[in-house]
Amino acid sequence: MDSRELLVDTMSELMWERGYADTSPRHVRERSGVGQGSMYHHFSTKRDLALAALERNIADLLPAASELDGPGDPMARIEAYLMRPRAALKGCKVGRMTQDPQVREDPVLLAPVARAFAEVHVSWVRVLREAVAAGQLRDDLDPEQLAHTLMAVLQGGYVLAIAQQDQGPFDDARAGALALLRAAKPNPKINRRK
Amino acid sequence: MDSRELLVDTMSELMWERGYADTSPRHVRERSGVGQGSMYHHFSTKRDLALAALERNIADLLPAASELDGPGDPMARIEAYLMRPRAALKGCKVGRMTQDPQVREDPVLLAPVARAFAEVHVSWVRVLREAVAAGQLRDDLDPEQLAHTLMAVLQGGYVLAIAQQDQGPFDDARAGALALLRAAKPNPKINRRK
Repeated sequence: MDSRELLVDTMSELMWERGYADTSPRHVRERSGVGQGSMYHHFSTKRDLALAALERNIADLLPAASELDGPGDPMARIEAYLMRPRAALKGCKVGRMTQDPQVREDPVLLAPVARAFAEVHVSWVRVLREAVAAGQLRDDLDPEQLAHTLMAVLQGGYVLAIAQQDQGPFDDARAGALALLRAAKPNPKINRRK
Repeated sequence: MDSRELLVDTMSELMWERGYADTSPRHVRERSGVGQGSMYHHFSTKRDLALAALERNIADLLPAASELDGPGDPMARIEAYLMRPRAALKGCKVGRMTQDPQVREDPVLLAPVARAFAEVHVSWVRVLREAVAAGQLRDDLDPEQLAHTLMAVLQGGYVLAIAQQDQGPFDDARAGALALLRAAKPNPKINRRK
């Protein structure tokens, strides 16, 4: 791996673990083993390196969200995406950037985060519309709103899990969301009670 | 206001704005106008001051959650609490602590955050059970899970709003959650279609 690659990799790990404000160029050099001269050859500021690392973290996140795009049964895709294995105590590589004071205040660092969430939102809206069209969800629900609700369940689930140092609240939050979605089926035409 | 009070107030503001890791004792002294000697008289470390400020932030948060406890119609209390005015771009005073690297790694600082979320969870479970008992929610939904779902909607809504620098995704997330809860009514005994 070349030293540029190694720096981006290391910064992306450190931003996930410690955020941006609390990660110093020295942390990056110590963990990557790349020297100061080489670091400043590739990235003239910590912020430049952080931008590259953020793009890397987003590139890791988006393929998972593209599972929402199908093919297959829309509600099954929703369930698969909501319930896929996620290490809740590590938090979301991208979402946690919003809580970093130096990222919040820097429109250039916040822009890729906003763009990534907007892309995931598009995938959510599409699959929710398909679920409505397939008769799996009531047609008086608003897919644009509901997409934000389900994204928030995951992002907020990380917050609850980290607070309790327990994966449980994250798993509860998404299981509860799935149960609500299932309860929001249109009233059945055929009543199958025994 | 005495200088101890002023220090706790200032630290509580700064932790909301900048988190813990990125707030230095100098920030606190500059904003509060309290001198170094007086500061160390009241709090021997930044961590001691942070603990007092965290307790203050939790004391601000919990009365709002106690609105869930009633009296009155359970679903109306749920709606009132979900939809109460919240400045989404400022984030949650307590929830944001989970994203602070130095808080995450410090069991003593994390403990009051865990305790506050556990208290809010108790209030949510109680009102959701009452809504089930009142025939406002299906009885196959699990109030323990759903309580975490709704807490996550709010906590995650802050993340989405900050990412987009827009209150909209937060308001969408909670409106979508409320629509799902309303869709999760038991099937009506009397069909009022015109």
